[in-house]
Amino acid sequence: MKKPELPAYLHNISIILSRTSHPANIGSAARAMKTMGLTKLILVAPNLMQTPMTAEPPKFNKQQPNDFSLPEESFILASGARDVLEEAKIVSTLAEALANTTLSCALTSRRRELTAPMHTPRELTPSLLQAAQTGQKVALVFGNETFGLSIEEVQQCNRLITINGNPDYFSLNLAQAVQVICYELFSQVDVSMDHLQQVANLATHQQIRSMVFHLRQLMDYAGFFNRRNENRLMRRMTAMFDRASLSTEDIDILRGFYNTISQQIHNQHD
Amino acid sequence: MKKPELPAYLHNISIILSRTSHPANIGSAARAMKTMGLTKLILVAPNLMQTPMTAEPPKFNKQQPNDFSLPEESFILASGARDVLEEAKIVSTLAEALANTTLSCALTSRRRELTAPMHTPRELTPSLLQAAQTGQKVALVFGNETFGLSIEEVQQCNRLITINGNPDYFSLNLAQAVQVICYELFSQVDVSMDHLQQVANLATHQQIRSMVFHLRQLMDYAGFFNRRNENRLMRRMTAMFDRASLSTEDIDILRGFYNTISQQIHNQHD
Repeated sequence: MKKPELPAYLHNISIILSRTSHPANIGSAARAMKTMGLTKLILVAPNLMQTPMTAEPPKFNKQQPNDFSLPEESFILASGARDVLEEAKIVSTLAEALANTTLSCALTSRRRELTAPMHTPRELTPSLLQAAQTGQKVALVFGNETFGLSIEEVQQCNRLITINGNPDYFSLNLAQAVQVICYELFSQVDVSMDHLQQVANLATHQQIRSMVFHLRQLMDYAGFFNRRNENRLMRRMTAMFDRASLSTEDIDILRGFYNTISQQIHNQHD
Repeated sequence: MKKPELPAYLHNISIILSRTSHPANIGSAARAMKTMGLTKLILVAPNLMQTPMTAEPPKFNKQQPNDFSLPEESFILASGARDVLEEAKIVSTLAEALANTTLSCALTSRRRELTAPMHTPRELTPSLLQAAQTGQKVALVFGNETFGLSIEEVQQCNRLITINGNPDYFSLNLAQAVQVICYELFSQVDVSMDHLQQVANLATHQQIRSMVFHLRQLMDYAGFFNRRNENRLMRRMTAMFDRASLSTEDIDILRGFYNTISQQIHNQHD
């Protein structure tokens, strides 16, 4: 029987590890990914600590991100998945890692005080695979082993994903979380999708952030922030737009509207 | 909100580890199980090797199976799941472990030359959970880390289960395999886990429609509909807001913003 081939669209799915502490976890993650047909790894500002195996861990320098190279310990744990590590992108900020993505899923524990809707991997995977199939870039974002993702990191993503388990005891380390997520993704690859949701022309992370910045400027110009908490309001607006699966046309309408309003107010200021 | 409880029938599901070599894997398996609500661990003839952590690993004696106790290394890796280890059954043969089960699933790699039909965890889990719900004992059987299950061990089981992945590279160790299987089982258990999500004060259909009508008036007033298709734009805006799971606070912010803008433009019209 002909050996099955992995579908090419899996290349559109990135695993992003932010501020990882242990070199071994990066290697284990690479192996977990490749085992489930995923190859795109992005490391955001790795914060590697010294371990018995690393004489001196390489320090990530935000000004010189390309100077960073992973310690041998990562490659040892990666085993036959060293190619994933060799091709991994290393960037300074999560925003860079997410720039071209339309869907970005922050892996979070259920204990966080978050108001955005949380989805299980089972629920979210179909939309991730559909988006990837249409050529969109999607990402799953994992935080530091001890602290997870910061609130700011979570806010940069437009989906929340949580792995459900025992409400009385939940102990899943980073490598296992990556393994479970990758397993879930691959498990749905063979499933034929009967109908595609409306995923055409989703706006990217970067486009949404630009539009929200434009709105912020307009609100400021209009004096809307007087006696209001600007940062808090903008966080709410960002979260709202992130939930809305904006298309590029929605962005165009909104920005056209902001320009019209600005012009109107400008005329008044003359 | 009341914390959900794990369904009692999960006690009818056993994880069986046969001839395990590494004490650490037993501890990791216990943690993986408990994280997904499973508590019944059975060890068949553990064949523990010496590791840097174990001075002298306990030797399992088939004639005196009850004399065996797990090394401390297993308990250290088990962390908060030590109770699973403490209550684990230790037996001499797989036949003993399977004696009361109706369904027994041998975890096997796809590379084995086996003629029996193989199922994925996704496919097999519903029948396992249904059997457990009716009081039947079911088991998932994992073999030695290096060699897997022997042909004889596989033949004692009445189901074959395989985790699918990359046909070119598949590297899942024992602890990860246990984690993935337990994750799959739990993912299909009907436990509502929403209790920790904040109740969002979602806006009603009526509130959203009123807000959109307010926006429409503002857009009209600002001249935004000149040379644009007003109805089409407003349908897009309505659909966008409908996707956004708006809270009542989002509505308040938006309407406050519309009022501020209206006032600014009004001043200009004077």
